[in-house]
Amino acid sequence: MINARIHVRFKSGVLDPQGTAVKGALKQLGFENVVDVRVGKLIEVKLNVEDEKDAKDEIKSMCEKLLANPVIEDYSFELSV
Amino acid sequence: MINARIHVRFKSGVLDPQGTAVKGALKQLGFENVVDVRVGKLIEVKLNVEDEKDAKDEIKSMCEKLLANPVIEDYSFELSV
Repeated sequence: MINARIHVRFKSGVLDPQGTAVKGALKQLGFENVVDVRVGKLIEVKLNVEDEKDAKDEIKSMCEKLLANPVIEDYSFELSV
Repeated sequence: MINARIHVRFKSGVLDPQGTAVKGALKQLGFENVVDVRVGKLIEVKLNVEDEKDAKDEIKSMCEKLLANPVIEDYSFELSV
Protein backbone atom coordinates (compact mmCIF):
# COMPACT_ATOMS: atom_id res chain seq x y z
CA MET A 1 0.00 0.00 0.00
CA ILE A 2 1.43 3.36 -1.00
CA ASN A 3 0.16 6.76 0.10
CA ALA A 4 0.48 9.74 -2.20
CA ARG A 5 0.18 13.35 -1.10
CA ILE A 6 -0.66 15.51 -4.09
CA HIS A 7 -0.53 19.32 -4.14
CA VAL A 8 -2.46 21.16 -6.83
CA ARG A 9 -1.82 24.90 -7.11
CA PHE A 10 -2.66 27.64 -9.57
CA LYS A 11 0.27 28.40 -11.85
CA SER A 12 2.08 31.58 -10.92
CA GLY A 13 0.44 34.40 -12.84
CA VAL A 14 -3.04 32.88 -12.55
CA LEU A 15 -5.31 34.94 -10.31
CA ASP A 16 -6.22 33.21 -7.06
CA PRO A 17 -9.36 34.93 -5.74
CA GLN A 18 -9.69 32.55 -2.80
CA GLY A 19 -6.13 33.32 -1.73
CA THR A 20 -6.81 37.05 -2.03
CA ALA A 21 -9.95 36.69 0.09
CA VAL A 22 -8.10 34.73 2.77
CA LYS A 23 -5.31 37.31 2.78
CA GLY A 24 -7.86 40.10 3.29
CA ALA A 25 -9.57 38.20 6.10
CA LEU A 26 -6.23 37.54 7.86
CA LYS A 27 -5.31 41.23 7.63
CA GLN A 28 -8.67 42.18 9.10
CA LEU A 29 -8.05 39.80 11.98
CA GLY A 30 -4.84 41.69 12.72
CA PHE A 31 -2.27 39.49 10.99
CA GLU A 32 -0.35 42.43 9.53
CA ASN A 33 2.71 40.37 8.56
CA VAL A 34 0.90 38.43 5.84
CA VAL A 35 2.46 39.21 2.46
CA ASP A 36 0.77 36.67 0.22
CA VAL A 37 -1.67 33.77 0.43
CA ARG A 38 -2.31 31.10 -2.20
CA VAL A 39 -4.96 28.44 -1.74
CA GLY A 40 -4.65 25.09 -3.47
CA LYS A 41 -5.82 21.52 -3.10
CA LEU A 42 -4.38 18.73 -1.04
CA ILE A 43 -5.37 15.30 -2.37
CA GLU A 44 -4.33 12.20 -0.47
CA VAL A 45 -4.64 8.93 -2.37
CA LYS A 46 -4.09 5.45 -0.95
CA LEU A 47 -3.04 3.04 -3.68
CA ASN A 48 -3.03 -0.75 -3.56
CA VAL A 49 0.31 -0.94 -5.39
CA GLU A 50 3.60 -2.25 -4.03
CA ASP A 51 6.07 -0.84 -6.53
CA GLU A 52 7.01 2.80 -6.09
CA LYS A 53 7.70 3.31 -9.79
CA ASP A 54 4.22 2.00 -10.70
CA ALA A 55 2.62 4.23 -8.07
CA LYS A 56 4.50 7.26 -9.44
CA ASP A 57 3.31 6.59 -13.00
CA GLU A 58 -0.25 6.02 -11.84
CA ILE A 59 -0.41 9.21 -9.74
CA LYS A 60 1.11 11.24 -12.58
CA SER A 61 -1.55 9.91 -14.92
CA MET A 62 -4.34 10.69 -12.40
CA CYS A 63 -3.11 14.27 -12.09
CA GLU A 64 -2.98 14.73 -15.84
CA LYS A 65 -6.36 13.15 -16.53
CA LEU A 66 -8.46 14.35 -13.61
CA LEU A 67 -6.91 16.00 -10.58
CA ALA A 68 -5.22 19.06 -12.08
CA ASN A 69 -6.25 21.35 -14.92
CA PRO A 70 -2.99 21.70 -16.87
CA VAL A 71 -4.08 25.01 -18.39
CA ILE A 72 -4.10 26.85 -15.08
CA GLU A 73 -2.74 24.46 -12.45
CA ASP A 74 0.54 22.78 -11.53
CA TYR A 75 0.81 19.65 -9.44
CA SER A 76 3.47 17.95 -7.37
CA PHE A 77 3.37 14.86 -5.21
CA GLU A 78 5.27 12.79 -2.66
CA LEU A 79 4.90 9.08 -1.99
CA SER A 80 5.19 7.31 1.35
CA VAL A 81 4.78 3.65 2.25
CA MET B 1 10.46 36.28 4.92
CA ILE B 2 9.12 32.89 5.93
CA ASN B 3 6.89 30.62 3.85
CA ALA B 4 4.38 28.37 5.54
CA ARG B 5 2.72 25.41 3.89
CA ILE B 6 -0.47 24.55 5.74
CA HIS B 7 -2.51 21.38 5.26
CA VAL B 8 -6.13 21.35 6.38
CA ARG B 9 -7.88 17.98 6.34
CA PHE B 10 -11.13 16.58 7.64
CA LYS B 11 -10.63 14.71 10.90
CA SER B 12 -10.70 10.96 10.45
CA GLY B 13 -14.28 9.85 10.89
CA VAL B 14 -15.69 12.96 9.23
CA LEU B 15 -17.32 12.18 5.88
CA ASP B 16 -15.45 13.59 2.90
CA PRO B 17 -17.92 13.70 0.00
CA GLN B 18 -15.44 15.38 -2.33
CA GLY B 19 -12.91 12.62 -1.69
CA THR B 20 -15.57 9.99 -2.34
CA ALA B 21 -16.52 11.69 -5.62
CA VAL B 22 -12.88 11.85 -6.75
CA LYS B 23 -12.40 8.19 -5.83
CA GLY B 24 -15.45 7.24 -7.92
CA ALA B 25 -14.22 9.30 -10.88
CA LEU B 26 -10.75 7.74 -10.71
CA LYS B 27 -12.25 4.24 -10.63
CA GLN B 28 -14.38 5.07 -13.65
CA LEU B 29 -11.26 6.24 -15.49
CA GLY B 30 -9.75 2.80 -14.90
CA PHE B 31 -7.60 3.45 -11.82
CA GLU B 32 -8.61 0.22 -10.11
CA ASN B 33 -5.84 0.37 -7.49
CA VAL B 34 -7.30 3.37 -5.69
CA VAL B 35 -8.27 2.40 -2.15
CA ASP B 36 -9.09 5.76 -0.62
CA VAL B 37 -9.08 9.46 -1.50
CA ARG B 38 -9.29 12.40 0.89
CA VAL B 39 -9.43 15.97 -0.35
CA GLY B 40 -8.19 18.81 1.82
CA LYS B 41 -6.86 22.33 1.50
CA LEU B 42 -3.34 23.49 0.83
CA ILE B 43 -2.77 27.06 2.04
CA GLU B 44 0.57 28.73 1.37
CA VAL B 45 1.25 31.87 3.38
CA LYS B 46 4.22 34.20 2.95
CA LEU B 47 4.97 36.03 6.19
CA ASN B 48 7.12 39.10 6.68
CA VAL B 49 8.65 37.71 9.88
CA GLU B 50 12.27 36.75 10.47
CA ASP B 51 12.00 34.63 13.60
CA GLU B 52 10.84 31.06 13.08
CA LYS B 53 9.27 30.84 16.55
CA ASP B 54 7.17 33.98 15.88
CA ALA B 55 6.10 32.62 12.50
CA LYS B 56 5.07 29.33 14.09
CA ASP B 57 2.93 31.08 16.71
CA GLU B 58 1.35 33.33 14.11
CA ILE B 59 0.49 30.47 11.72
CA LYS B 60 -0.95 28.43 14.59
CA SER B 61 -3.15 31.35 15.55
CA MET B 62 -4.31 31.85 11.93
CA CYS B 63 -5.27 28.19 11.69
CA GLU B 64 -7.23 28.32 14.92
CA LYS B 65 -8.99 31.60 14.15
CA LEU B 66 -9.71 31.30 10.44
CA LEU B 67 -8.11 28.63 8.30
CA ALA B 68 -9.36 25.42 9.93
CA ASN B 69 -12.67 24.55 11.54
CA PRO B 70 -11.56 22.79 14.73
CA VAL B 71 -14.84 20.91 15.03
CA ILE B 72 -14.31 18.88 11.86
CA GLU B 73 -10.81 19.68 10.59
CA ASP B 74 -7.20 19.10 11.62
CA TYR B 75 -4.30 21.19 10.43
CA SER B 76 -0.55 20.80 10.16
CA PHE B 77 2.12 23.05 8.73
CA GLU B 78 5.77 23.31 7.74
CA LEU B 79 7.87 26.45 7.56
CA SER B 80 10.64 27.22 5.08
CA VAL B 81 12.81 30.30 4.65
